[in-house]
Amino acid sequence: MQIGFIGLGQMGSAIAGNLVKAGHEVTVWNRSSDKAKSLVAAGARQAGTPAGAAAGSVVFTMLANDEAVEQVVFGEDGVLASSARPIHVSMSTISVALAERLTAAHAAAGVGFLSAPVFGRPDAAAAAKLFLVAAGDEKALAICEPLFAAVGQRTFKVGAEPKMANAIKLCGNFMIMAAIESLAEAMTLAAKNGVEKSVLLDVLTNTLFGAPVYRTYGDIILHERFEPAGFAAPLGLKDMNLADAAAVASRVPMPFLAVLRSQLLTTIARHGEKVDWSALAKVVAENSGL
Amino acid sequence: MQIGFIGLGQMGSAIAGNLVKAGHEVTVWNRSSDKAKSLVAAGARQAGTPAGAAAGSVVFTMLANDEAVEQVVFGEDGVLASSARPIHVSMSTISVALAERLTAAHAAAGVGFLSAPVFGRPDAAAAAKLFLVAAGDEKALAICEPLFAAVGQRTFKVGAEPKMANAIKLCGNFMIMAAIESLAEAMTLAAKNGVEKSVLLDVLTNTLFGAPVYRTYGDIILHERFEPAGFAAPLGLKDMNLADAAAVASRVPMPFLAVLRSQLLTTIARHGEKVDWSALAKVVAENSGL
Amino acid sequence: MQIGFIGLGQMGSAIAGNLVKAGHEVTVWNRSSDKAKSLVAAGARQAGTPAGAAAGSVVFTMLANDEAVEQVVFGEDGVLASSARPIHVSMSTISVALAERLTAAHAAAGVGFLSAPVFGRPDAAAAAKLFLVAAGDEKALAICEPLFAAVGQRTFKVGAEPKMANAIKLCGNFMIMAAIESLAEAMTLAAKNGVEKSVLLDVLTNTLFGAPVYRTYGDIILHERFEPAGFAAPLGLKDMNLADAAAVASRVPMPFLAVLRSQLLTTIARHGEKVDWSALAKVVAENSGL
Amino acid sequence: MQIGFIGLGQMGSAIAGNLVKAGHEVTVWNRSSDKAKSLVAAGARQAGTPAGAAAGSVVFTMLANDEAVEQVVFGEDGVLASSARPIHVSMSTISVALAERLTAAHAAAGVGFLSAPVFGRPDAAAAAKLFLVAAGDEKALAICEPLFAAVGQRTFKVGAEPKMANAIKLCGNFMIMAAIESLAEAMTLAAKNGVEKSVLLDVLTNTLFGAPVYRTYGDIILHERFEPAGFAAPLGLKDMNLADAAAVASRVPMPFLAVLRSQLLTTIARHGEKVDWSALAKVVAENSGL
Repeated sequence: MQIGFIGLGQMGSAIAGNLVKAGHEVTVWNRSSDKAKSLVAAGARQAGTPAGAAAGSVVFTMLANDEAVEQVVFGEDGVLASSARPIHVSMSTISVALAERLTAAHAAAGVGFLSAPVFGRPDAAAAAKLFLVAAGDEKALAICEPLFAAVGQRTFKVGAEPKMANAIKLCGNFMIMAAIESLAEAMTLAAKNGVEKSVLLDVLTNTLFGAPVYRTYGDIILHERFEPAGFAAPLGLKDMNLADAAAVASRVPMPFLAVLRSQLLTTIARHGEKVDWSALAKVVAENSGL
Repeated sequence: MQIGFIGLGQMGSAIAGNLVKAGHEVTVWNRSSDKAKSLVAAGARQAGTPAGAAAGSVVFTMLANDEAVEQVVFGEDGVLASSARPIHVSMSTISVALAERLTAAHAAAGVGFLSAPVFGRPDAAAAAKLFLVAAGDEKALAICEPLFAAVGQRTFKVGAEPKMANAIKLCGNFMIMAAIESLAEAMTLAAKNGVEKSVLLDVLTNTLFGAPVYRTYGDIILHERFEPAGFAAPLGLKDMNLADAAAVASRVPMPFLAVLRSQLLTTIARHGEKVDWSALAKVVAENSGL
Repeated sequence: MQIGFIGLGQMGSAIAGNLVKAGHEVTVWNRSSDKAKSLVAAGARQAGTPAGAAAGSVVFTMLANDEAVEQVVFGEDGVLASSARPIHVSMSTISVALAERLTAAHAAAGVGFLSAPVFGRPDAAAAAKLFLVAAGDEKALAICEPLFAAVGQRTFKVGAEPKMANAIKLCGNFMIMAAIESLAEAMTLAAKNGVEKSVLLDVLTNTLFGAPVYRTYGDIILHERFEPAGFAAPLGLKDMNLADAAAVASRVPMPFLAVLRSQLLTTIARHGEKVDWSALAKVVAENSGL
Repeated sequence: MQIGFIGLGQMGSAIAGNLVKAGHEVTVWNRSSDKAKSLVAAGARQAGTPAGAAAGSVVFTMLANDEAVEQVVFGEDGVLASSARPIHVSMSTISVALAERLTAAHAAAGVGFLSAPVFGRPDAAAAAKLFLVAAGDEKALAICEPLFAAVGQRTFKVGAEPKMANAIKLCGNFMIMAAIESLAEAMTLAAKNGVEKSVLLDVLTNTLFGAPVYRTYGDIILHERFEPAGFAAPLGLKDMNLADAAAVASRVPMPFLAVLRSQLLTTIARHGEKVDWSALAKVVAENSGL
């Protein structure tokens, strides 16, 4: 299939690479063009504008935040300026409000629009082991299915409105942060009562809490591997802020989310912008005098 | 082995029953004696006092709270009054402070003392599928090992001080409550953005959150099965209060625990003392206007 | 002095009225023009555009939110389009970020800009008893001083950067909400222990808490006068969101603010958009089963 | 009047001293007897037991915590062992639960019992400027009125059940802590936006927040006078724990109280047991990176 891919950060590059490997004709675009080199070497074409990358049947965007998506979509030479009218698949973690606005704008332009944010770290992206959460028009979803299959291990179709996928993505990231804070509080309580953190983690993950989220983050907290960041604290805060905005807009009080935002702010204020979001475990420990 | 079992509630009866089945000579005692009937029918003997049940080599206690344990241990005709000097295995969810006091009192009396609280609901107890978290003297643990094996699927030995097992039990219950609140907030946010709760749960449990705690409680929340209670809200509050007392004593700020205690109080104040602890999901939903 | 006044809601009308009374030549503008009638009857002129109201030496804006201010300032025929280059005094409760943007835009246009938000309800505005919190260039402040004196009982000059006044206004509204929540929690605890709320309030306001904030809101809570709203809950939420945005931007964890936002969302979700912000006392009481 | 006074800490000594000055025959008792010296020099008698101090018509107790009160009242040679059957006036900040237990025990013994906790720091006690919050039997209150007048500037009679006064005292201390946290959050937000803390405080205390609680603690926070402690953080935590216990027992969710307990634990864990309870402002500032 002729497709485009816009946004070549760690995640985007890995995903685009898998689309190339799967035999698709991929045209890429990135704000700083040098990030496209290795993909071009692997067979991708490079466009000069976002619109140029939107000349096939499907165009993906995988960008850092709402602002970047708005520029790439609504800007001069943006996705909506393309005459090819490809289905636009937005993979970025963006606000529910922007998802609604994009849905309306694409509908007005007669262009297909899907939200398909992903769960998984860069290594999962490279290994085509991502989980995709996709929402939008059924036919568009069917067209994109082989593309999704080329980059992930499973796709969840979650509804007819694109924003539903974004809401689920935000819920998921909230749940991860909540698991981290829970673990951090429990480990600190245990430690101050003489229990080895590893012993607590062993009991938890071998009983009711045998899920990747506890194993992955339990291990990080145990060994205090907060730098370099797998997912930096300010990005975590950004996502919690998006969840908060959705909660305010839809009138949902979320006291755990409120705690998480306070803790992340403390993490960043005390430990800088470069630590992993799981470094809020460090703040929990410090606040107990450890 | 000649053993005693004190406390024949839902959990205690099931555990004592498995000890009888495993061929041990079990002498039971319960405050209201009629609860012993079925066990006696199955081959157990019934003692007239706690001390009477403490006439073998090991005596278990599985009671509702600190007060009940104190009475049964320190009271006239209590466990410490027995001349048999059995190893006392405390399975109850009690405070870290009482565990410390019991450790000291048993040591002073020259009697063995272990803490071995369990994870698992009554059905797991009946099926001998409990998880035991045991702490205390190595030799005493070795002696009790076959007894533990008769009632659970796995025993975690977590340290030399009995209180360590109690701390872990409280941490575990805190983690369960935290998972429930997290799920409740996420499901409510999703629901108010048009996403089916079951869809969110499906995505979560098939990606990073594939642990029993999310499956079990996700299902309860989804179908609003808050009555009859598997574990009543006031018992949940009791355990969160024990965790809080340990946190205060060891100077550990736990903001998530603080939220959970507020939510549980609201749950009880608004929905009565009989709902399941997971009914705090009902409060989360109501607070959003659902 | 020849001045303009933009925004004729309850507060704006009262303030503009006092400027007319003080003998100034006031030109007013409001989106829905009928709100100008009584002021015109009192001697004001009415402009057809915001720029038209910005034809004197000073122009005030008193609007509902950031969006309204942006339109009136940056829009076609907006304040910045006026050739008269008056000092612009922004009285609205707006974000710190917008205050910064306005400061930069006015500086670029060579136009004076002050922030002068106020404390006081509509009756205080009518009686010229407002408190003004003003920040910006010294000379501009000196020019406006007689105007401030005509509408308030006291002006606090708080710094050279306009945003400082906005930060203080948001802090003040946060402090009011915090006092309301504190009172509500204390009154509920007292009531559930048999103490009359009025008795508690009497003790508090006659000892350490003898400030208008406790008298005013204590009285409202005591008599449950939550409708009609003096200051509607969604406006309160808007201001707490502005405080939250400033806190996030400047990396300040504010756990009380986090609670207040949750409680306000609950208030609105359960009691609608029309109740007073002090109705969060109702939520506190309900959550205790009262 | 012949009266007794038990508990000669900073507060107790000052109050007992004023009773001596007012011409009453005061017999004092304290666990460490040397604290009685200056009072004896001033004309008081010293008893050898609490019962010995309870030989007149009224006996006051002013002690550190529940445990101390229990010992002095229920112990051998305790207040209830006195044959003189004086009215017992409990001034200590104790739990609502103990107040109920004391009420029942004194009634059973046919002895009068009042709760009369006080608001005011040691300097107010010395100057006979305390506020007393008194509850209990009307006649007993009438008898004690001249004694109260000798030690305080005003007595609030708040109800017929002694525990009501204790509930109000706990509410009051909660309100003080809440005012401190509010101020700390606001000052930190202001400071990080370039506003001088003193400027914010000036605006607040001259508008809606003109109460002693804001002036006193605002000043302490401004000048960071956290040591030596006027009221040490662990005592503050003790009182918040008593409020929490009352809240749990009467099923009142108090989210602000929950935050305060977390913050106080952090304060103590990070800054030791000797700082003033207002040092939680230090934690708020630190958490923002200041």
